[in-house]
Amino acid sequence: MNPRVLQIPGSMIRNVAAKKRPSSIDLGLGEPSLPPNPEHFAYAMAAIAKNGIKYTPNAGDHELREAIARYYHYPDMHRAANVCVTAGSQEAMYVALKTLLDPAQDELLIVEPAFPAYTKMAALEGVGVRCVAMQEERDFAFDADRIAAAIGEHTRAIVLCSPCNPTARVFGQEQAQRLVHALERRKGRPVWVIHDEIYREQTFVENAAYFAEIYPHTIVTNSLSKSNALTGLRLGWILAPHEFIEQAVKTHAWVTSCADTFAQYVARHVFMQLEGVREHAPWYREQCAGVTAALHASGLRFVAPEGSFYAAVRLPSGVSSLDAATTLIEEHDVLAIPGSAFGAVFESWLRLSWVSPLERIREGVARIAAYYATLPSRA
Amino acid sequence: MNPRVLQIPGSMIRNVAAKKRPSSIDLGLGEPSLPPNPEHFAYAMAAIAKNGIKYTPNAGDHELREAIARYYHYPDMHRAANVCVTAGSQEAMYVALKTLLDPAQDELLIVEPAFPAYTKMAALEGVGVRCVAMQEERDFAFDADRIAAAIGEHTRAIVLCSPCNPTARVFGQEQAQRLVHALERRKGRPVWVIHDEIYREQTFVENAAYFAEIYPHTIVTNSLSKSNALTGLRLGWILAPHEFIEQAVKTHAWVTSCADTFAQYVARHVFMQLEGVREHAPWYREQCAGVTAALHASGLRFVAPEGSFYAAVRLPSGVSSLDAATTLIEEHDVLAIPGSAFGAVFESWLRLSWVSPLERIREGVARIAAYYATLPSRA
Repeated sequence: MNPRVLQIPGSMIRNVAAKKRPSSIDLGLGEPSLPPNPEHFAYAMAAIAKNGIKYTPNAGDHELREAIARYYHYPDMHRAANVCVTAGSQEAMYVALKTLLDPAQDELLIVEPAFPAYTKMAALEGVGVRCVAMQEERDFAFDADRIAAAIGEHTRAIVLCSPCNPTARVFGQEQAQRLVHALERRKGRPVWVIHDEIYREQTFVENAAYFAEIYPHTIVTNSLSKSNALTGLRLGWILAPHEFIEQAVKTHAWVTSCADTFAQYVARHVFMQLEGVREHAPWYREQCAGVTAALHASGLRFVAPEGSFYAAVRLPSGVSSLDAATTLIEEHDVLAIPGSAFGAVFESWLRLSWVSPLERIREGVARIAAYYATLPSRA
Repeated sequence: MNPRVLQIPGSMIRNVAAKKRPSSIDLGLGEPSLPPNPEHFAYAMAAIAKNGIKYTPNAGDHELREAIARYYHYPDMHRAANVCVTAGSQEAMYVALKTLLDPAQDELLIVEPAFPAYTKMAALEGVGVRCVAMQEERDFAFDADRIAAAIGEHTRAIVLCSPCNPTARVFGQEQAQRLVHALERRKGRPVWVIHDEIYREQTFVENAAYFAEIYPHTIVTNSLSKSNALTGLRLGWILAPHEFIEQAVKTHAWVTSCADTFAQYVARHVFMQLEGVREHAPWYREQCAGVTAALHASGLRFVAPEGSFYAAVRLPSGVSSLDAATTLIEEHDVLAIPGSAFGAVFESWLRLSWVSPLERIREGVARIAAYYATLPSRA
């Protein structure tokens, strides 16, 4: 078999999550707990009843592509030709990396802590990877100078997720401008920014940066999974300069042919609403305030969430995050994700998600604090 | 960008199909014209209303995997662990090829005439390809000895589509046994058979071979697209030995994560019915008889369809299939697909599909015969 596939280990996140019981407090889950809006489905059902469920063009339904481009309205990316509709943001990222990077010469720079998919996808494609870690002592704030300094001769793209899974930090406008200036000062082939915007509608700060607004060599990936509680729908997209989309559509055509037509009708209905992709945003804002208060009250060291639906919580020094997560689920019935899944720099942290009811989250946080109290204190 | 993506040309089939007008007789379309059964959608909608639309496990919903494995009941492939649910049979084939083949040493043997995706996918992965053409003078019958003779030192897998797109031939049991014997006599690493079964429920002969029944190194790809008129649903699967599925699930997990949950509910309902995947089979059998009669009456040379919903029709000697298809759509308002899209051996042929109403097909065939009559006759 393909040695690149054989070498990929199983998912640490799924291994820990598999220990969950019906009674467990779930602070591990990476998907919304809200029910999706049934009106979107009703629209799609009516469309299917009328039209059947035929293939769309490879790049996606033209009206949907137009609606997506118009909604985000990034400079030079506001037309249907700037959009490729995909089977979720996972395929969007996979197709973007595969289309952009030449395994023979290009290297991908990953800003850590990071969602593990980027590294795994690069490994699958035989693309070299370099990682640049944001600093623990600065609560993993995005640091333009560190990222720029990590760019090597072969770096062809930087992939980053903002709002960030797992740190819940947001790339601010000032730092983004610094990074763009550094990229623009470079000679030779441009270095692309791949901005994973999947938590865009869970942003709780005012100065969030969108690279597509300020840097022409930007590729955006996104989906309806987190914004509209539609994880299982598998409807995502790539937004990029049209020369890039033209090539990405070819990759996408041979990987999955086209996205699900039913899902594309659902998405059309979402984008028909004035604030369709923001329909759950107020709930997350409220939930974030409650979780932040609970974490403050707990006495745990944590990074205050600026976006996404996660919170990073520090472990006592010297405790392995996998051991801690294992003990927490086995002995305290709380599911939390070990930081080491997101890069070595996150080894002393747990990633908590906060999509469960607030009462349950408070109880979970209290149990984590109680567990910490049982550990021998180390300087 | 990735040179493997840049080098892939646009689709010849889509270029010709783009010339279609509302008035055109469509003998090009590669998807069913029947409406899908609304009961499957009603079931899925009820399930979504109750459960939302969460991620399924990467490999797919367990009950669906079990239902698929049980339905086909291939030896040593009849358990959930033998199934990976994918975003259509396109992703099934892509994941199968990517998981199995090591670009550094393996070669794929493609039985031609063939659906163009196999070559394109191999090119995208940097996997070497060898083609073996079935013989025009034998009406492209599957020929085990020719295939076996074409196996080279590096051949790791043979990919074939039976019932065949575009020839409409079916691999018979006797020929399949001959091929399996030849494969079993070989020393060294086994050569795998990848059997694209997407037209399985459009089989009109009694002795169709299923490689998974007779050869343990078989990987099957299939979907509900053609059997149930659900092309836009993007619901397919890989059926294979569980050691292979284990690796394929890893590839699938990083390419698309998991298949659409709504589509998986639709599929569960299809497989709950006694003859769910065969619900349209009688229509195709009747349609096939009508088309075969029309082709006989036309005086055209054609290959009598044994399966799929295509018919291969010979062009007068010396006429390029792309020129013929272009003239047919531009001057006679009939869409047919040029044979050259499926390999050089099919250059003197057109692929007609017969999912339009019989009256329209008869008219289309008559127009093709009239066009042929205008061409200078050549020996």
